[in-house]
Amino acid sequence: MNERIKNAALRAKLMSADDAARFVNHGDKVGMSGFTGSAYPKALPTAIAERARAEHEAGRDYTIDLFTGASTAPDCDGVLAEADALRFRAPYQSDPTMRAAINAGRMGYADMHLSHSAQQVEEGFFGALDVAIVEASQIDADGNLVPSSGVGNNVEYLNAASRIIVEVNSWQSIELDGMADIWQMPALPNRVAIPINKPGDRIGTTYIPIDASKVVAVVETDAPDRNAPFKPIDDISRQIAGNFLDFLEGEVRAGRLTYDGYIMQSGVGNVPNAVMARLLDSKFENIQAYTEVIQDGMVDLIDAGKMSVASATSFSLSPEYANKMNAEAKRYREHIITRPLQISNHPEVIRRVGLIATNGMIEADLYGHVNSTRVAGSRIMNGIGGSGDFTRNGYISSFISPSVAQDGAISAIVPFASHIDHTEHDVMVVITEHGFADLRGLTPRERARRMVQVAHPDYRPLLEDYLERAEAASVKAMHEPHHLATALAFHQNLNETGSMRG
Amino acid sequence: MNERIKNAALRAKLMSADDAARFVNHGDKVGMSGFTGSAYPKALPTAIAERARAEHEAGRDYTIDLFTGASTAPDCDGVLAEADALRFRAPYQSDPTMRAAINAGRMGYADMHLSHSAQQVEEGFFGALDVAIVEASQIDADGNLVPSSGVGNNVEYLNAASRIIVEVNSWQSIELDGMADIWQMPALPNRVAIPINKPGDRIGTTYIPIDASKVVAVVETDAPDRNAPFKPIDDISRQIAGNFLDFLEGEVRAGRLTYDGYIMQSGVGNVPNAVMARLLDSKFENIQAYTEVIQDGMVDLIDAGKMSVASATSFSLSPEYANKMNAEAKRYREHIITRPLQISNHPEVIRRVGLIATNGMIEADLYGHVNSTRVAGSRIMNGIGGSGDFTRNGYISSFISPSVAQDGAISAIVPFASHIDHTEHDVMVVITEHGFADLRGLTPRERARRMVQVAHPDYRPLLEDYLERAEAASVKAMHEPHHLATALAFHQNLNETGSMRG
Repeated sequence: MNERIKNAALRAKLMSADDAARFVNHGDKVGMSGFTGSAYPKALPTAIAERARAEHEAGRDYTIDLFTGASTAPDCDGVLAEADALRFRAPYQSDPTMRAAINAGRMGYADMHLSHSAQQVEEGFFGALDVAIVEASQIDADGNLVPSSGVGNNVEYLNAASRIIVEVNSWQSIELDGMADIWQMPALPNRVAIPINKPGDRIGTTYIPIDASKVVAVVETDAPDRNAPFKPIDDISRQIAGNFLDFLEGEVRAGRLTYDGYIMQSGVGNVPNAVMARLLDSKFENIQAYTEVIQDGMVDLIDAGKMSVASATSFSLSPEYANKMNAEAKRYREHIITRPLQISNHPEVIRRVGLIATNGMIEADLYGHVNSTRVAGSRIMNGIGGSGDFTRNGYISSFISPSVAQDGAISAIVPFASHIDHTEHDVMVVITEHGFADLRGLTPRERARRMVQVAHPDYRPLLEDYLERAEAASVKAMHEPHHLATALAFHQNLNETGSMRG
Repeated sequence: MNERIKNAALRAKLMSADDAARFVNHGDKVGMSGFTGSAYPKALPTAIAERARAEHEAGRDYTIDLFTGASTAPDCDGVLAEADALRFRAPYQSDPTMRAAINAGRMGYADMHLSHSAQQVEEGFFGALDVAIVEASQIDADGNLVPSSGVGNNVEYLNAASRIIVEVNSWQSIELDGMADIWQMPALPNRVAIPINKPGDRIGTTYIPIDASKVVAVVETDAPDRNAPFKPIDDISRQIAGNFLDFLEGEVRAGRLTYDGYIMQSGVGNVPNAVMARLLDSKFENIQAYTEVIQDGMVDLIDAGKMSVASATSFSLSPEYANKMNAEAKRYREHIITRPLQISNHPEVIRRVGLIATNGMIEADLYGHVNSTRVAGSRIMNGIGGSGDFTRNGYISSFISPSVAQDGAISAIVPFASHIDHTEHDVMVVITEHGFADLRGLTPRERARRMVQVAHPDYRPLLEDYLERAEAASVKAMHEPHHLATALAFHQNLNETGSMRG
C-alpha cells in the first residue's frame, strides 16, 4: 500500500483517521473532495462524525461547515448529518439523511451553481477555508496528488485551505494516473482564456501540485465509491429517450447537427441512462461528452465505439461498472478526461463547444420555467448542481422527465412553477413520454400550448382550464397571462390532499 | 453627404426610404440595428409602417417579425407598433406603444437574454432572416460599414440576411470611425476563445465587412438618436448610490477589490446614473466598464479622469451628452470601445474580467429571486435585456432599486416574486435606500432576514408576518419556507386594490 505514497515527507504524516480528525475543529470550514458519489474521502467523515458525537455527549458544541464538489455518499454526507456534525453545507447534496436534516431546519444549506462554488470559496464569500480533505489514488514522488475517480473542487480547496489531509485510497485503480487534466486559472484580475476548443483537448498536468507544508495528515483507505445501481430501463424512460432522439433527428434535418460529432451534456439518472442506451443503436457516431459526470451509459457508448471522448469532473458508476473501470482504467483513460469542476462546468467552454444540454427536472410550468430543486416551493430535494451551468450556456437546452410522478399524483407540467431554477429565457426544449415541446422562437402563449401537449392527458384539461382563467384575468397583461389566485393551486392541492388534482 | 458613401457600387444603390421599403415584404423576418435608443435605422421603420398601413387599408395582410440589438425609439419600435406592422418582436423592447400592443395580445414578443439573440437568429431558431436594415456612420471605399452609435447584432444580421439595406446617417459623427472593435466568432463547431482579457483590449477591425452583392438599397438619413434626458438625481437615488458605495468599500476592506481598477457593469436608468455621480467623488480610480450601454454618467467619469475605458455595444446618451459626443468623438474614442453585442455580453469575457454587475429590478423576493420584467407576473414592462448575462457570469451580482414605487403602493421586496428572471442562485446583493442585503454564503432563511431589512418600513411587518406564516406551514420543508395560499397576496392585492398593502 505504501507504494502509493511515493513522497517520503508525506509518508511521514501517515496516521489513523481518528488521529487525523483531531485537526478538524469545531467551527472549521472544511473543503472535501467528492462529486456524485465518487472520490469523496472514505475515512475522515466517519471519524469526524464520531468526534462530533463524543463532543456532543460531553456537552460541547461541535459542528463544521462542509463544502465539496457535489454530492457524496452515505459514508460521507450521511454519517455527518446523522451525527448532527454540520452547521452548513454547500454547494450540493443528495443524501436522504442530510436532506431530512435540512428540511427539518436542523442544518443550513446553500444551493449553488457548481461553476460558482470554487470561485466563491476561494474569494472568501463563506469565510476562510480551514481544512481540505481530499482523496487521491496516489501521491507521487514530488508530493503531487493523483486524483481518484474525480477532481471536483480539489484544486481550489487545496489552494485555499490552511491545513490539508490526504486520503490515499488503494481501492481506486492505480491506472487512473493519466486520466485527469489539471489546469489552474490565474487569480483575478489576471484571468486568461481557457485553451479548450473541443471536449477532448488536454491542457494541463495529470496531477494536482500541493503545498506539502500544509499537509497535517495522510490516511490510508481501501473503500469503494458507493454508488447505487441503475434501475432497469422502463417503458416510460424508453419513450422519453425515443422522443429525445426524435428531437435530435429534427436538429439534423434542420442542418444544426450532424450524425458525426454530437456534443452531449447529460444529467445523472435513470432517464438519461435510457437516452444513452437509445443512442447505442442510433445513427450518431463520434459522440462527445462535455459534461460534469460520466455514468454507465457513457461507458457503454465508449465500449461500442460510439463515443470518442467524455470530459467531466468525475465518473459515477454502478458497482458493476466501477469494477470494470478499476479493471480497465488504462483503456478508459484514452477516452475519459476528468477536469476541475470549474473547468468542466465553465460558462466559457460550455458556450464555445456548442453542446446540447439535457437535464432532469421536478416540474416545468406552462411558460417554460423549470423547477429542479424544491417540491411545492419549499422542500429541498437535492440541488441545482450543474444544470444551470449547462442550460444557460449550452447551444440548446433540454429537460427530460416523465409527465407524472407518484402514480399520477404529481404532474411535471404545472401552471406556475413553485420554485424557479431555470427561467423561460433559458429553457428551450421540454421532453416527456408524450413528445417534445420545442419552445424556441415562441412567445409565452405559444409556449403554453406546446407545454400542454407534453403533459399527461389527465392533467391537460386542468392546464387548459388554467390558461383560460389566466387569459380572462389578464386583459391588459396578455404577454404571459396568469391567474394569481389559482397559480399555485396544483401545489396547494398536493400539500393538502397528496395529489395535485385535489 | 455622399462623401460618407465612398464605395461607388453601393452609392449606385442610393434610393428613398419608401423605395427601399419595397424590399421588405409581408412575412419577412427583419434584423435591424439599434440598441437602447441608439444606432437604429431612422427612415425605414416609418416607411415600412406606412407601407403596412396602406396594405391594411387595401385589405391585405402585412406584418413582419423584427429583431434588433435591444430597444430602439419612438421613430422605430413606436411607429411600427402604431401601424400594427409587427407580428413578432425579439429580443427586447421598451417602447410604450409597443408594450401596450404586446400586453393587449395584439403582437407577440420573445423576451431573451441578449447574449443569446445573435446565435439563435443565425442558427435559424426563428427561421431564416430575410432582410437586415443597418445604420452606419459611413461606408468606406471597400464597401465596409463603419458603425454609428452602436454595433448590436449588426454583424450577425448582415451575415445571415438575404438582403441588406444600409442607412447612412450624417447626424452621427464621422469621427466615430475607430471606436468600434469588430471581431467575428467562427461558426460552430469551430469556435475559439475570444482574446479579450481586459475591458480595453481591441481585437478586431473598426468596420463591418459585408457581402455587397446582398445590398439592395442605401438610404441617406440625418436624424438624431432619440434618447430621453435623465431626471435630476433625487434623494432616494442618492441614498441608494451611497449604499452601493458602502458595499464597494466593504469589498475593498475584505480584500476583494482595490481602489484601482474596479470593473463595472451597469444597467441603464436614473438610479445607475446616480451611482456614477457618486463614484465621481469616491476614492475609486481607473474605473473600467465592461457593459452593454454607455450612458451619461460614464461620460462624466471619463471626463473627470476617473474612468479609463468603457467597453459596450452602444452609447445611449441624453440629447445634451449626444451633442458632446458628436463634437468630441475623436477624444471619446480613445476611451470608448463599441463591440458586437455577442462580445459585450458574452459569458466568457464577463466571467474572465471579473466584473461587478449592477442592474435595476421590478421586485426581489425574500429569498433573493429577482423579477426584472413582469408586473404582477403577467404584464411585460421591457425585458430581461443583458441583466442575466452579467448577473449570472459576473464576479459579484447586485440589484439596485428604491424600496417602493407609486407612492408606496408597490413594494420592491415581496414574499414570492410574481415572475423570476434571476434566481436565488444568481443574486448576491440587493440594495435599496435602506441599505444593502449581502446574501452571499447564506441559507435561504438567513437571506430572508436580510431582505426584510432593506424593505420599506411600511412593508417590513407584512413580510415578517409572511415569514412566520410560511415557517408554520413548512414544518417538514424548512429549507425555503413558503405559505402557498398567500405567497402571491401582495400581487393579488395590487391587481384588486391598486396597492400591495391591500
